[in-house]
Amino acid sequence: MTLNTATPAALIALDWGTSSLRAYLLDHAGRTLCVRPLPWGIMRLPQAQPGQASSAGFEIAFDEACGDWLREQPGLPVIACGMVGSAQGWREATYLDVPVELSGVAQLMTKIERAGQPTIHIVPGLIQRGELPNVMRGEETQIAGILATRPSDDADLLIGLPGTHSKWVRVRDGQVSHFDTYMTGEVYAALRDHTILGRTMNSDAPADAQGFARGLAVANRPEGRAGLLSTLFSTRALGLTGQLDGNAQADYLSGLLIGYEVASVLVSHRAQGALPHIVLCGQDDLCQRYVQALRLYGADEPELAPHATERGLWHLAQAAGLVPAVAN
Amino acid sequence: MTLNTATPAALIALDWGTSSLRAYLLDHAGRTLCVRPLPWGIMRLPQAQPGQASSAGFEIAFDEACGDWLREQPGLPVIACGMVGSAQGWREATYLDVPVELSGVAQLMTKIERAGQPTIHIVPGLIQRGELPNVMRGEETQIAGILATRPSDDADLLIGLPGTHSKWVRVRDGQVSHFDTYMTGEVYAALRDHTILGRTMNSDAPADAQGFARGLAVANRPEGRAGLLSTLFSTRALGLTGQLDGNAQADYLSGLLIGYEVASVLVSHRAQGALPHIVLCGQDDLCQRYVQALRLYGADEPELAPHATERGLWHLAQAAGLVPAVAN
Repeated sequence: MTLNTATPAALIALDWGTSSLRAYLLDHAGRTLCVRPLPWGIMRLPQAQPGQASSAGFEIAFDEACGDWLREQPGLPVIACGMVGSAQGWREATYLDVPVELSGVAQLMTKIERAGQPTIHIVPGLIQRGELPNVMRGEETQIAGILATRPSDDADLLIGLPGTHSKWVRVRDGQVSHFDTYMTGEVYAALRDHTILGRTMNSDAPADAQGFARGLAVANRPEGRAGLLSTLFSTRALGLTGQLDGNAQADYLSGLLIGYEVASVLVSHRAQGALPHIVLCGQDDLCQRYVQALRLYGADEPELAPHATERGLWHLAQAAGLVPAVAN
Repeated sequence: MTLNTATPAALIALDWGTSSLRAYLLDHAGRTLCVRPLPWGIMRLPQAQPGQASSAGFEIAFDEACGDWLREQPGLPVIACGMVGSAQGWREATYLDVPVELSGVAQLMTKIERAGQPTIHIVPGLIQRGELPNVMRGEETQIAGILATRPSDDADLLIGLPGTHSKWVRVRDGQVSHFDTYMTGEVYAALRDHTILGRTMNSDAPADAQGFARGLAVANRPEGRAGLLSTLFSTRALGLTGQLDGNAQADYLSGLLIGYEVASVLVSHRAQGALPHIVLCGQDDLCQRYVQALRLYGADEPELAPHATERGLWHLAQAAGLVPAVAN
């Protein structure tokens, strides 16, 4: 595929996670020339031929993602973030300990050097050590993207990254000071697809806003505070008693789970003083669910931060000297 | 199979749940002459022939469970409890509203009458109506069995029935006054088998008491109170940082989940005054996990109640007049 553009590219930026791969071609000002979404997450790589090296699946996916861009413009620098740098990834990248300034991330790229091929620079993840440790890979890049486009006097932020494993990240004085992981998205899918709760759900039903709002409300009620393990069963019991239609049960469950996540985040950050400004970054429809929960539970209106991944990859490539650090 | 016993039987009692069926043959004093465990839960019935009635799977399972007993001693009364009385069961049995005295249960049996065959009496379930309703089928019989063998001046009890869907039942003045359902067992299986947490677990490892105790402790710590959705991920993160071996991760997760369940039960019942005497009924090894949690969280030593199901079926059969109400 030719690019059909007069603008030369400056960077190939890969957002390479567990279940998908997105390749961005960016120009000298960090503007997106092309986005290519592919299904080749690190757990779903294309099948290599028998006898090929264990990295062959990564090579094939990489070539599909950006081989043509590199043939057209050899020597383009390549940066990647996400689970591609995990123990199950192409090459294990390092972790930086929090608290950390994200500019440090750019100094510790892990390089995949391949004979006659461009080097791939993998962004390190973050680790929070302790008795209940925590790790992230990929979200550090989104945070870098959010911080790069904000006024530097934004001293204190709470960044929410909803998804399979939601991250909630506290930023103080420009440093990532603490983060938590909520397995909300993955727990939702496991409960819907692999417990009795799914049996009475109509999985083809369109989104049910009332069911979702009802789940949010329950998670915030005194009975709701008995906890998730207990209120989960109401998804079924409300159905058995004719109080909740099968078309609404999946979104009721979504409301319960997102409700518990958001309530827990607010409690733990309010315990440290006034709630900071909240920024959300993720898929639009999912972020809207979190906005609704935050409103219901009395938080100020959050800000939405689109395109944080490509902003972050661009910013980190600049900080690492892969592209010129011009104003953009 | 002949019974090889001189004692005539008085009752066939079936504990017929979602995943298994246990048939008991009891004598005139309620003593167990024979127990027959079968895999024919209502969701796993034997395959009927094409063209047979929808109840054929139940008929085949019933005949395997107790057909020979009935041929040897025709006219034996038959009582059954559990999901066999659900909408997906052989015949939908009624629900009684709590608060309720369990003697009332015996008056509202649902009968399956079959030409030339003995009538099967299905015990009604219990329902707790309200904005967060709750239901049980089968546990009411275990509660009846526990209460039938206790001094009647035991005014206030908290009965825990650990399992796929744990029930915690408050009994006041001989009445079931309130109950909650915790989906702990089913959530554990869904998380272990269908999320990333299972990837680093060694599923063949023997039980790891230390891992379990550590999960219990985390669920009770201030950070643990951030809730299950957040601390779940520590199962993986502790593994990634070399702090929790793959052999211990399944039991750590079990400790987390049982810990949240028990902590929630204790909080909600302590909020109503002094904690009543606790009775546990369920599989031995599972009950031992709950005993450990109750001890760690400062509850008095619970009592274990074995054989509650067959005691309950016998007691309810007496109350319904299916067998003579002699002292036993």
